[in-house]
Amino acid sequence: MAKQPRLYLIPNLLAESHPDSVFPPQNLAIVRTLNHFVCEHEKPLRILLKLAGVHSPFDHLSICVYNHHEHDALSCLEPLRLGHDLGLVTDAGCPGIADPGAELVGLAHSLGFPVVPLTGPSSILLSIMASGFSGQQFSFRGYMPTDLAALRKEVLALERRANEQAETQVFIETPYRNQKMFEFLLKHLRPETRLCIAMDLTGPDEWICSQEVWAWKSAKRQLDKKPTVFLLGRV
Amino acid sequence: MAKQPRLYLIPNLLAESHPDSVFPPQNLAIVRTLNHFVCEHEKPLRILLKLAGVHSPFDHLSICVYNHHEHDALSCLEPLRLGHDLGLVTDAGCPGIADPGAELVGLAHSLGFPVVPLTGPSSILLSIMASGFSGQQFSFRGYMPTDLAALRKEVLALERRANEQAETQVFIETPYRNQKMFEFLLKHLRPETRLCIAMDLTGPDEWICSQEVWAWKSAKRQLDKKPTVFLLGRV
Repeated sequence: MAKQPRLYLIPNLLAESHPDSVFPPQNLAIVRTLNHFVCEHEKPLRILLKLAGVHSPFDHLSICVYNHHEHDALSCLEPLRLGHDLGLVTDAGCPGIADPGAELVGLAHSLGFPVVPLTGPSSILLSIMASGFSGQQFSFRGYMPTDLAALRKEVLALERRANEQAETQVFIETPYRNQKMFEFLLKHLRPETRLCIAMDLTGPDEWICSQEVWAWKSAKRQLDKKPTVFLLGRV
Repeated sequence: MAKQPRLYLIPNLLAESHPDSVFPPQNLAIVRTLNHFVCEHEKPLRILLKLAGVHSPFDHLSICVYNHHEHDALSCLEPLRLGHDLGLVTDAGCPGIADPGAELVGLAHSLGFPVVPLTGPSSILLSIMASGFSGQQFSFRGYMPTDLAALRKEVLALERRANEQAETQVFIETPYRNQKMFEFLLKHLRPETRLCIAMDLTGPDEWICSQEVWAWKSAKRQLDKKPTVFLLGRV
């Protein structure tokens, strides 16, 4: 019997970094064997293909763009049904984590195809490791509400969970709003709550700082407009 | 001014796998440059050192075992204070995630030393990617209670969170209790709840299955005594 085709979940760069610092060699070897890909946007996939040593133009490859709109999930998984291995590549970090890929993975399971997740960089995981906050229990909350009253309610609820249940709370923000979120947190969090800010992880400007809110207040730092993870914790 | 010494957070193997499948080459290059390590147990560190091409015996290395008991955190970080880079290595997976390392990382921040998290395999992250459940919001709960009444209450609370808030719930179990946990889940979860079981991730017996509880019931599978992640989700 022929080997069943597999859906490979292939991490992408998080930042401008050398592939040797974030990709196990096997990932790039697998990329070189594949002729069928699904991605959120084509450009980040093309960058990964070049890093793997695949020569452009990529006319020999079938590439399906999937971001909830352009194609339906079933047609993107068509190569599996035709007997080909398929690579799911996200724009940044790990497929299925804070991206639309989870729907495709769920469908692959429903259709009975094996799913193979590959190791790679995740800003969420790296920031939890680096925060010094509890990694025994943690919760990733995605993006926070933009409405200020809703945001305040949510942030205070997360602070309570972090302090009372020792569950590290993790969230992200659109980079151009980093400074606004930062000021909001300093205004509303208790002085003794621990706040970690992890910026440009794996990139040239990686910067991770973890301290109490009172210490942040006296530091008067301005945050850059780089991808950033915010974490609340009780050590 | 001399470069400030750094605390490197160095992931270890999750399973019996080739290092090329889980470690970026830079990780092993960094391991080769270090003379000072902190670990949970010595044996998994020794295996990593050999994979990195460091020759045994490791008498030239300073190794501090840290598992809450044998040393206090401050003495394990002594190499940083003497000006040396230090590597924190966990028994399996990523330091600071479901291991005692977070305390050391928190202390390094308090002392003002830069913390550098390296990319590597995490069974928690890989299982969320591979589950097909929402990666927009998720919560890692660690180990479940062993008392059956408390376990039932906790599992039903997680099921509610998974279904009502679309927050994927992730937990782990001691391998020899996998089958008992599995039977408990099938008995108490609603038939339409989605359950993913991810076993021996990155290892030779990697096995990931994600389906509704009713489908698990009819499959009548026996779980092996391998490291396993359980996930509840609503797609």
